[in-house]
Amino acid sequence: MKTVKSPAVLYKSLKKFRSAGKAIGFVPTMGALHAGHLSLIRQARKENAIVVVSIFVNPTQFGPKEDLKKYPRALNKDLAFCRKERVDFVFLPRTKEMYREGFSTYVNVERLSEALCGKSRPGHFRGVATIVAKLLNIIQPDSIYLGQKDAQQAIIVRRMVKDLNIPVRVKIMPTVRQKDGLALSSRNSYLNSKERKEASVLSAALNLAKLLIRSGARDASRIISRMRRLINQKKNAGIDYIAIVDAESLKPVRKISGEYLIALAVRIGPTRLIDNFQGRFSTQSESVPR
Amino acid sequence: MKTVKSPAVLYKSLKKFRSAGKAIGFVPTMGALHAGHLSLIRQARKENAIVVVSIFVNPTQFGPKEDLKKYPRALNKDLAFCRKERVDFVFLPRTKEMYREGFSTYVNVERLSEALCGKSRPGHFRGVATIVAKLLNIIQPDSIYLGQKDAQQAIIVRRMVKDLNIPVRVKIMPTVRQKDGLALSSRNSYLNSKERKEASVLSAALNLAKLLIRSGARDASRIISRMRRLINQKKNAGIDYIAIVDAESLKPVRKISGEYLIALAVRIGPTRLIDNFQGRFSTQSESVPR
Repeated sequence: MKTVKSPAVLYKSLKKFRSAGKAIGFVPTMGALHAGHLSLIRQARKENAIVVVSIFVNPTQFGPKEDLKKYPRALNKDLAFCRKERVDFVFLPRTKEMYREGFSTYVNVERLSEALCGKSRPGHFRGVATIVAKLLNIIQPDSIYLGQKDAQQAIIVRRMVKDLNIPVRVKIMPTVRQKDGLALSSRNSYLNSKERKEASVLSAALNLAKLLIRSGARDASRIISRMRRLINQKKNAGIDYIAIVDAESLKPVRKISGEYLIALAVRIGPTRLIDNFQGRFSTQSESVPR
Repeated sequence: MKTVKSPAVLYKSLKKFRSAGKAIGFVPTMGALHAGHLSLIRQARKENAIVVVSIFVNPTQFGPKEDLKKYPRALNKDLAFCRKERVDFVFLPRTKEMYREGFSTYVNVERLSEALCGKSRPGHFRGVATIVAKLLNIIQPDSIYLGQKDAQQAIIVRRMVKDLNIPVRVKIMPTVRQKDGLALSSRNSYLNSKERKEASVLSAALNLAKLLIRSGARDASRIISRMRRLINQKKNAGIDYIAIVDAESLKPVRKISGEYLIALAVRIGPTRLIDNFQGRFSTQSESVPR
């Protein structure tokens, strides 16, 4: 396993594999790796000759009042983790190198970036799209692996790749969860034990929605209000949003239909957590949420 | 010479040359090819195994009141022109294919896009950056060739390539001019014979600036007012802007120094024309504007 800090060096190192027709799989991360990342890395390992993992806490996707400074960092642990999974290259760029003096180019996926998490995190997805575009240009992978946990991010990257003709396959892997349903996230480490218990309410609310849909509920606002009631039972929970939207356009849907996304962001104490569930409903078949 | 309409087909056709290590040179155009384009194509031909020319009148770089509809189109002439210059691929994408339903991703080079022509053409350079990013992803050339005539465009593409880590060399070729100094432009075809005569005043004003700098003038506002006076002598001329700026940041300079750009946009009758001249001034050496 090689660790590389320079974009130019990584680009050159990968060029020979690319020319030789070796498939390159890429997993972008902000470090503090957990079993969610593991599932991405293993899938990349399975499908590619070369696996590249980037670890970069990207400042442009954090708002001025967000947790950039205290975002968990665990480089040595992360490197051991990657080594164990037979990662070929770990890319560890420096912020100064990624955002050089005079930097002023941003990639923005309009509309999609303003929905859901974009409302309370303005600029966040512009930062995400920009850094992913940069990483894709440096690494030029055949496939990029993202987690369903960050559904909006995945949808935005997919849209960007399509719109900008970036020659890469976007692969979305299922959310990995704790036993009580809590979706894995590096930010879970912020939770104290009380909060940790209450945090399972996000997935519980999604399970409730699934159950309601299975038993025939179709009205989005009714499903949302049932979820809201459940979450509000928790003392430390503050709802940022609960939304049921079209899974491509992210526009709110009134009635459950087609490919839909139920997404929510909830503050548990000071920690903002997100979760979601993507389903498909056709009038032709039974409602079978995945 | 092959003409290709599909981005996917072009990408695949070029892949084998790329894998074989053949250098690819790319000249993006909006068609209505003239001797300015010719100089780009010839340079690309000289330096590369494969030459790709794109002809695409890109709607996203035209404002709602601009000349998208009447922009000169001369496809058959353009194709004959390319064939004669031994171009390998002419890329003729359809608008519908380049901007598919739901398209929403834009590349924006902030600040640089708002200066000079960006003031009277809001959104123009966002359209330029976006289409160039798309074309670079489809073609993945080793070098892209642009004309100095569109200086701001060249500076913005250079910045974008650097900021987004796009692995391509940006090569800027000198402006090609008519005998009386008028910079070649597809839009010159809009001029009637009276306007055509007056249009030489853009290059005349730049020559005046050079002369003034050679004879010791350093104060930007003074040079600009001399240029302004010259242009205002023409009956049909309406100045959009005259600016002396730093050639990297496009910020106005007070005193001629370093790498500077003198740029102007002037309406001759209804036709908006641009021209510029890039110079380097160091206190170490004599002032020798290129």
